[in-house]
Amino acid sequence: MTKARFYHAGCPVCVSAEETLLQYLSPDVEIEVIHLGEQPDHVAEAERIGVKSVPALVIDGNVLHINFGAPIEALK
Amino acid sequence: MTKARFYHAGCPVCVSAEETLLQYLSPDVEIEVIHLGEQPDHVAEAERIGVKSVPALVIDGNVLHINFGAPIEALK
Repeated sequence: MTKARFYHAGCPVCVSAEETLLQYLSPDVEIEVIHLGEQPDHVAEAERIGVKSVPALVIDGNVLHINFGAPIEALK
Repeated sequence: MTKARFYHAGCPVCVSAEETLLQYLSPDVEIEVIHLGEQPDHVAEAERIGVKSVPALVIDGNVLHINFGAPIEALK
């Protein structure tokens, strides 16, 4: 089982990306969705991993920034 | 079977995104990979669909721009 994290901030861009992408990911991927607006204690962790904007999907150590919702700086 | 298109231009950002993402997509998604640098006749089609930069994954009419490799304008 591969673990992945989807970071978002609740904006429409993020929610739309989330719905589209998560729907089509392999069932072998276990995904944890983190709302950085509601869980600001995860911002430092996201930044350490390399998340520069949300929405972002982190999978196997690769950070995929999807579309452009908000820069990580705006969430601090 | 859902059909999807992955547009890229052969740059390292695109190739890395492609490998990461396509590996974890559901087996129910049939994906067509289009290299816009080698198939410039697809640029107008990509633009019509809403692709603004590559790499981009188009799935169910949703355009997901992944990271940022090159603006579509650079591929014309």
